[in-house]
Amino acid sequence: MANDKLESSATPDDTPPSTVRVGLLGCGHVGAALVGLIDQRNDAIERASGVRFEIAGIAVRNPSRQRDLAVNPDLFTTDAAEVVGDPSVDVVVEVIGGIEPARSLIVDALKAGKPVVTANKELLANVGSELYALAAANEVDLLFEAAAAGAIPIVRPLRESLLGEDVRRVIGIVNGTTNYILSRMAEDGADYHDALAEAQQRGFAERDPTADVEGYDAGAKAAIMASLAFGVNVVAGDVYHEGISAITQEDIVFARHFGYTIKLLAIAERFDGPVEGVADGQGGDREAGATGEIGVTVYPAMVPNTHPLASVRGSFNAVFVECAAAGDLMFYGRGAGGAPTASAVLGDLIDASANLRKRTFRPVPSGHRSRIRSVDLLKSAYYINLETVDAPGVLAEVANAFGRNQVSIRSMEQHGMADQARIAFITHTAYERDVQQTLRDLRALDVVKDIGSVLRVIGS
Amino acid sequence: MANDKLESSATPDDTPPSTVRVGLLGCGHVGAALVGLIDQRNDAIERASGVRFEIAGIAVRNPSRQRDLAVNPDLFTTDAAEVVGDPSVDVVVEVIGGIEPARSLIVDALKAGKPVVTANKELLANVGSELYALAAANEVDLLFEAAAAGAIPIVRPLRESLLGEDVRRVIGIVNGTTNYILSRMAEDGADYHDALAEAQQRGFAERDPTADVEGYDAGAKAAIMASLAFGVNVVAGDVYHEGISAITQEDIVFARHFGYTIKLLAIAERFDGPVEGVADGQGGDREAGATGEIGVTVYPAMVPNTHPLASVRGSFNAVFVECAAAGDLMFYGRGAGGAPTASAVLGDLIDASANLRKRTFRPVPSGHRSRIRSVDLLKSAYYINLETVDAPGVLAEVANAFGRNQVSIRSMEQHGMADQARIAFITHTAYERDVQQTLRDLRALDVVKDIGSVLRVIGS
Repeated sequence: MANDKLESSATPDDTPPSTVRVGLLGCGHVGAALVGLIDQRNDAIERASGVRFEIAGIAVRNPSRQRDLAVNPDLFTTDAAEVVGDPSVDVVVEVIGGIEPARSLIVDALKAGKPVVTANKELLANVGSELYALAAANEVDLLFEAAAAGAIPIVRPLRESLLGEDVRRVIGIVNGTTNYILSRMAEDGADYHDALAEAQQRGFAERDPTADVEGYDAGAKAAIMASLAFGVNVVAGDVYHEGISAITQEDIVFARHFGYTIKLLAIAERFDGPVEGVADGQGGDREAGATGEIGVTVYPAMVPNTHPLASVRGSFNAVFVECAAAGDLMFYGRGAGGAPTASAVLGDLIDASANLRKRTFRPVPSGHRSRIRSVDLLKSAYYINLETVDAPGVLAEVANAFGRNQVSIRSMEQHGMADQARIAFITHTAYERDVQQTLRDLRALDVVKDIGSVLRVIGS
Repeated sequence: MANDKLESSATPDDTPPSTVRVGLLGCGHVGAALVGLIDQRNDAIERASGVRFEIAGIAVRNPSRQRDLAVNPDLFTTDAAEVVGDPSVDVVVEVIGGIEPARSLIVDALKAGKPVVTANKELLANVGSELYALAAANEVDLLFEAAAAGAIPIVRPLRESLLGEDVRRVIGIVNGTTNYILSRMAEDGADYHDALAEAQQRGFAERDPTADVEGYDAGAKAAIMASLAFGVNVVAGDVYHEGISAITQEDIVFARHFGYTIKLLAIAERFDGPVEGVADGQGGDREAGATGEIGVTVYPAMVPNTHPLASVRGSFNAVFVECAAAGDLMFYGRGAGGAPTASAVLGDLIDASANLRKRTFRPVPSGHRSRIRSVDLLKSAYYINLETVDAPGVLAEVANAFGRNQVSIRSMEQHGMADQARIAFITHTAYERDVQQTLRDLRALDVVKDIGSVLRVIGS
C-alpha cells in the first residue's frame, strides 16, 4: 500500500500509518466524489496525518447502476445496516440525505462506538440535538462540516475557534441556487422566471425548486448554525421563511439605485435585551420578547453594496459572523456540489480518524431548547414599494400611515407613471408588527392602488 | 467560583469544571485585551467547554506601569522565566513579539510539557519549524491562530479542514495598514503620503511604517501560511517582497479604468509542473524551476473588481485559498488589533486546555525545508506604465521590445500630454525574467522617457 514516495516521510507522532476502513452510506454526487478524492489523496493524507482510508462498503439503492469509480464493484450493497454493522468498519460516512433511514443508521453507528461524518442538513436541523447527545454519551465524534455551508469551513470555526467568543449575529448566503438567480437578475437584467430556468438548465436548481427558492434549504442551515453559534438547540421548524419568487426586476433596479444588492439571507441572532415594553426581570424569561431569545429567519433583503456579502456572486455562498471581540468575520466558498461537499466530508473523516487513534472525540456542546423570538418582535429597516394615484396630498396620507405606527421614513423616491405614481420607501429600523400594521393601514387607503415588494434592509 | 447561572449547566462530558492556570508573557494591547476577555467570558467558556481560566502570572517589562485591568497587581513580574517555570502554570501565552526572549521562553515551556499559545508571527516565520518539532517531541500543543491573520480563523482550517485538500494557491491581504492606505487612495483620491499620514494618525500605521509598507509583516504571515498550506518549511527569508510606497494616484486611476483595484498581496503557491525548458525527470527536482517548488511573494497587484479580494476594504484582511476539490474559499476579518487578536488567542487557549484535559495534542505536520522557486521564474500578467515621446512609430518600437522578449500585450491605452504620451499596457502571462528584460530594452529606447509603475495583475 505504501509507495516509494512515502518511504522517507515520518508520520507526525512516529507511529506506523494506520488504515481506517470507511463505511459509505449513499453514493450520489457527494459519495462518488468522496470515493474519487480518497483515491487521489490517500498518499498525501498519509504523509500529513499518518492515516490512510480504505472503502469497506458502499450502501446504495441500486448496486447494479453503472458507476465510473475506482473501487471493487463487490463493495456495493443495498444493505446499509450491514455496512454499519460490519465489525471491520471504523468510521461511517452518511451522504444519503433525508431523515430516515439516515437517522437510524447513524444511531446504530454511534451506539456501536463508530464515529460518523454526515453532510445531512435536513437530519441535523431536525434531530441534531438528539444525535449530538448520543455521540457524546458514546464518547465518539459526530462531524458535519459539509451540512452547514458545503465546502466552507464554518462548523469548525464556530465549534472551536469562536467557542469563547460572544457571537452576536450570523448572516449567511447559504443557498447557491437563489444566489445564482438573484445574481443573474442583478447583472443581466433577467426576470425571475428566466433566471430560474437558466439555473435549472445549468444544474444549479432542481426541477421542483421549492426547497431552494422558498428558503427551506437555507432555513435548515440557519438552524444548524444558530445552534452552534449560540450553544442552544434550534430546529428547522423554528425558522421564519420568506422566499425570492416575488422579487421583480423593478426591486433590483430600485435596490441598485439606493446602493443595495438583493440577497436571500439566513440570519441567526441572539438578543441581549428585551423587546421595548416587555418586563424582563425575575421570571421575565418566560415572557415573549425577553433577553436571551434567538431570532432565526430566512428572507430576501437589501444588502448595502459596501457590505462584504453584497459581492458574493453566482452560486457562491458566504457566512458573515458578527463577534464582540473578533469583530466581523466572513467565510466564503462553494456551498454545494459533489467535489466541494466531498472535500468537507474528507476533512471531517481525517479529523475523526485522528481522534479515533488518540481515543478522544470532540463533543458538540449540548444546548437547551432555545426560546425563539417571534418575527413580529424582530426589528429591521424596510424597503416598501407602493403604487398610488398621482394626486396632491397622496404622500401626506401615505406618510401619515407610517407615522402613526411608529415607522419612520429614511428615504423616499417617487416616479410618476401617467395618472399613477410608484413610490419606494426605505424606513428606519422598526418592529415587524408595526410594519405589518402600516401595510394594513396603507392597503385601506383609497390613494394606494397596490403594495409591491416589502423587503428588509440590512445595515452596513 | 461557579455562580447561580451555572448550576444547571452540565459540562459536555459530565466531569467537574477544571480551572486552567495561564502564564501570560507580555501585556501590551493583545495581552491586556486577553485579560479583559477572560474576565468577561469565563462563565460562558465554562458552560461551553467545562474549563475556566485563571491568570497565574503576567510577565512585563515595567510592572509598576498603570494598567486598568481586573487582576491582582501582585500578578505582575519582570521575571518571565519564573512565570514559565511556575509549577502551577498549566498553559503559557506568549504575546511579547520578536524572536528573543520569546523563543527561549517558549522552548522552556514546551520542554516542561506546557502547551503554548502564541501570536508571534516574526518568531514562527523564522524558527517555527524548530518549535513545531519540539512541541511534537514533547507531545504538547503549540497553537498560533493569531499569528497568521489576526482574528481570521485561517490556521485551524489549513491545519484541519483542508488537511486532505490539494491546496493550489493562497492569496492574502494580510496587512491592514497597507490595505487601509490603498483603500484611501482608491476611494478618496488621496496620494500615498497623505493616506499614510492619515493611517498613522488613526493608529493603523507605526511611526516607522517600513515593516508594513515594504511588505515584511505580510511576508512573515505568507511564510507561516505557505508552511501550513503545503506541509513544508518556508521561512521569512524565502519571501520575495515589493512594497506599496511607489504606487501613485495615476496607477489607481488606470487600475479603475481597466476594472481593477490595487491591493498588497501575499501569495504562496505550489508548482505542479516545471518551468518551460527545465528538464524535470529523474533528479529534476535538483534543478531550479522543477515541479514541487513553492513561490512565496508579497507585492502590490491589480485585482479584478469581480474577485472577492477586490472588495476587502479599509483595515480588513482576507485570505483566499484555491483548492482542487473544495474550489475557492475566502476567510475575511480583522487581521490586527488588541481585541480581535486576543479573541484568536482565547480560541486557542480553550483548545489547548481541552486537549490538556484529554491528555492529547495536535501536532503541526513537520515539513522538510521547501525549495523556493526564484521570482525570475514566476509567471504573471503585468501592468506597465510608460512615458514616451509623442511621435509616429513610437508604439511600434515599444511593442517590438515586448514582442522580442515573448511578452505579449493584452490591452493598451494611450493618453497624449503636450509633446509626450503616457501609455499603459496590460500583458498576458509572462515570466518575470522576460518582463525584466523587456524593461531593460524599453529603458534603452530613445523614445521612452520614463518607466512608471510596473505591477502584477491577478487573474479573475
